[in-house]
Amino acid sequence: MDLYELTMAESYLAYKPDTLATFDLFVRELPPSRSYLIACGIDDAISYLRTLTFSKEDIAYLAGKRLFSRPFLTYLRNFKFTGDVWAMPEGTICFPREPLIRVTAPIIQAQIVESFLLNTINLSTMIASKASRVVTASRGRDVFDFSLRRTQGADAAIKVPRAAYIAGFNATANVLAGKLYGIPVVGTMAHSFVMSFGSERDAFFAYARTFPGQTILLVDTYDTLRGIENAIETGRFLLEQGTRLVGIRLDSGDIVSLSRYARQRLDQAGLVYVKIFASGNLDEFKIKALLEHGARVDGFGVGTNMGTSIDAPALDVIYKISEVSDKGENFLPTMKLSQGKVTYPGRKQVFRVKDKRGRYVSDILALERELTQGKPLLQKVMAKGRVLYKPSPLGSIQKSVRESLLRFSPGLLDVYPLYRYPLLISPGLSQLRKCVTRQLKARQPDMRVC
Amino acid sequence: MDLYELTMAESYLAYKPDTLATFDLFVRELPPSRSYLIACGIDDAISYLRTLTFSKEDIAYLAGKRLFSRPFLTYLRNFKFTGDVWAMPEGTICFPREPLIRVTAPIIQAQIVESFLLNTINLSTMIASKASRVVTASRGRDVFDFSLRRTQGADAAIKVPRAAYIAGFNATANVLAGKLYGIPVVGTMAHSFVMSFGSERDAFFAYARTFPGQTILLVDTYDTLRGIENAIETGRFLLEQGTRLVGIRLDSGDIVSLSRYARQRLDQAGLVYVKIFASGNLDEFKIKALLEHGARVDGFGVGTNMGTSIDAPALDVIYKISEVSDKGENFLPTMKLSQGKVTYPGRKQVFRVKDKRGRYVSDILALERELTQGKPLLQKVMAKGRVLYKPSPLGSIQKSVRESLLRFSPGLLDVYPLYRYPLLISPGLSQLRKCVTRQLKARQPDMRVC
Repeated sequence: MDLYELTMAESYLAYKPDTLATFDLFVRELPPSRSYLIACGIDDAISYLRTLTFSKEDIAYLAGKRLFSRPFLTYLRNFKFTGDVWAMPEGTICFPREPLIRVTAPIIQAQIVESFLLNTINLSTMIASKASRVVTASRGRDVFDFSLRRTQGADAAIKVPRAAYIAGFNATANVLAGKLYGIPVVGTMAHSFVMSFGSERDAFFAYARTFPGQTILLVDTYDTLRGIENAIETGRFLLEQGTRLVGIRLDSGDIVSLSRYARQRLDQAGLVYVKIFASGNLDEFKIKALLEHGARVDGFGVGTNMGTSIDAPALDVIYKISEVSDKGENFLPTMKLSQGKVTYPGRKQVFRVKDKRGRYVSDILALERELTQGKPLLQKVMAKGRVLYKPSPLGSIQKSVRESLLRFSPGLLDVYPLYRYPLLISPGLSQLRKCVTRQLKARQPDMRVC
Repeated sequence: MDLYELTMAESYLAYKPDTLATFDLFVRELPPSRSYLIACGIDDAISYLRTLTFSKEDIAYLAGKRLFSRPFLTYLRNFKFTGDVWAMPEGTICFPREPLIRVTAPIIQAQIVESFLLNTINLSTMIASKASRVVTASRGRDVFDFSLRRTQGADAAIKVPRAAYIAGFNATANVLAGKLYGIPVVGTMAHSFVMSFGSERDAFFAYARTFPGQTILLVDTYDTLRGIENAIETGRFLLEQGTRLVGIRLDSGDIVSLSRYARQRLDQAGLVYVKIFASGNLDEFKIKALLEHGARVDGFGVGTNMGTSIDAPALDVIYKISEVSDKGENFLPTMKLSQGKVTYPGRKQVFRVKDKRGRYVSDILALERELTQGKPLLQKVMAKGRVLYKPSPLGSIQKSVRESLLRFSPGLLDVYPLYRYPLLISPGLSQLRKCVTRQLKARQPDMRVC
């Protein structure tokens, strides 16, 4: 957490120990070339709220800062999150300004958890949203997460494959992510493997003998055309052994021509079942272009560009107070007026509206109790600090993401999106916002009657 | 780790259990607008090599894949890294194609550690290099890491402040990073704090009473000009109490005009000692522009843009085999020839050359035992798996980074760098590369005599 969460908490403990507040966690704006987001990281966020404590060592460290009072350190030592939380289920398709998580809790607690919630939702939502574009661009071909070596640290290294899998990736190369989350793992070989043998052919045969039914050969270490011939020879050898070469991998050069050439040579050699995989600096833009130009690729290994969301490596995700209780325990709506950073006051819900054919046509941001149409997206997931739901298995989240996406216009899902999905503001929320704005500008916040 | 490291290792165990190899970890190319790198993450990498083991659960998971042999799983269960490692000391200024880490070990081991080494060096080196630019742009003013909420995951959240501190940042807002690494921590308040009180003035006074000597007031929640007046009032109150307001923070709007206005108002009010801090989407480009346009800012809080290295969120960092032992335990140099991805063969060292005034003028990439000029940058840090050095305290690394940077031309350090630092290839290395290329192209790798 950030230090200011603790200093504010100390001041809250002194001045408003019993005050409750509601915070909304949402993304302010879409990054360029995104048209939707996939809410992801919710389960990690809830798990954090359920388990957050301060150890003796933590307290000793904070005491050493000579910044905090004894009563406050005691408060931290006994800390337990006791709030109510509403959230979108993991894998919900969502849009800017829609709360992904809504926390109502003693303001001290709600404030202390801010930075972690933002951090974890930022990473997983950003990656799931990027990975979903890669899946769409691949048009039903397999996509594999190869990002471990370039993700930003060890935590991203395991959360990226999880988010990518939710978004529709088939597997990851990351063994620990496979172990932790039950995601299928895949692997081929590195250039160093080929280089460590006397010849490429020796390397291919050695690998094929070790993993007869599971061999994918990397063919571009020295000369891709010769690599393909060596792979064919290996494939024939495996056939004689009564098994099959799984595939070859192209990692450099002109993938369109090379994959077409490889397909032709493999087919001529009777190895029609051998798959062609491509990797090397791929993203949704390149995959789309490769397929449009007739590349014969059966699966894509996607690393850095997806694993860092390279064209938008952070979401504009924020956590903003929307209401605060007075001494009578009534909630007063509030909002921020900073230049260009205005927020929405009050306790809100997001409603998703379908047309007659079941297609999603718009969302409505409304007050929680306002009567409106559509299906509410925020669900109650914690009550007084107790978790109310069981996380779904990743496979079923992946399935529900795929099915949800089909209910949006295809123009929204294109790599170059054709339109913006509309978010409407309900009459009740519009009116509340006007009223709160007027009161804040008149500087009579103590007399709020909105 | 990636699955392919384990499948290759299985095949190595079957075909070349005693083969040794050398791998170089280096950055292939600088990202746009970088002119140097700061080697960072070395200590974490060495710590990984020292401690890597496979638990019973890990082995059980791998056994369940039905991919690996019993002897290989036993090998993993007893795994211990026993190689020699040379590395640049944490905080070394470095350049593309220069090995940051050089591993010589049984090829099985050297291969297994690949992905983690890349991941950890990628993150910390990328962030230290970005943060260094922010420090330079700030021209001696304070710079604080505010990136926790937008770093890519929890591991980045603590490694970013460490790397930024090494690069010259003064402090972080991240409490855990402060605790783990002994970095100074700082904090102010959030907009939500101001909004939770009846008025901005009430919020300021409450905070000032809680932290009389350590108050920094966020003045842009509603109206920055009024916020400044409320801060002045709070500053006068603190003065009456015999203490001082530390500063105000501007987080939105036109920072040049607002900071100049704030300075004037604070000075008129006799609060000349009150500092002005700025935050909100800052990076080295904006800080340079703010200062050029006369902003009166004493310190900058820098978050997302530094903490994700937003303009270059991954380095082109790779780990390439450069030599491999034959059956007679002689090392044969090798290299990759893939299109556009050629590497350098052999066991190498980097030499840094000074002119008479002590200025660094060029680096030389050479064979380890080649006679050349300059100071060798790679130091032996592990022998047969034993660590040979003690990590330096972060403060002294920070100091040595600052001092080293002063020995390079100022034109290299500019936010818009004026030239490229030259890396020369030694005659011995050039010749070896030609020879290995010729042999690989002639496909007689078994007869290598380079």
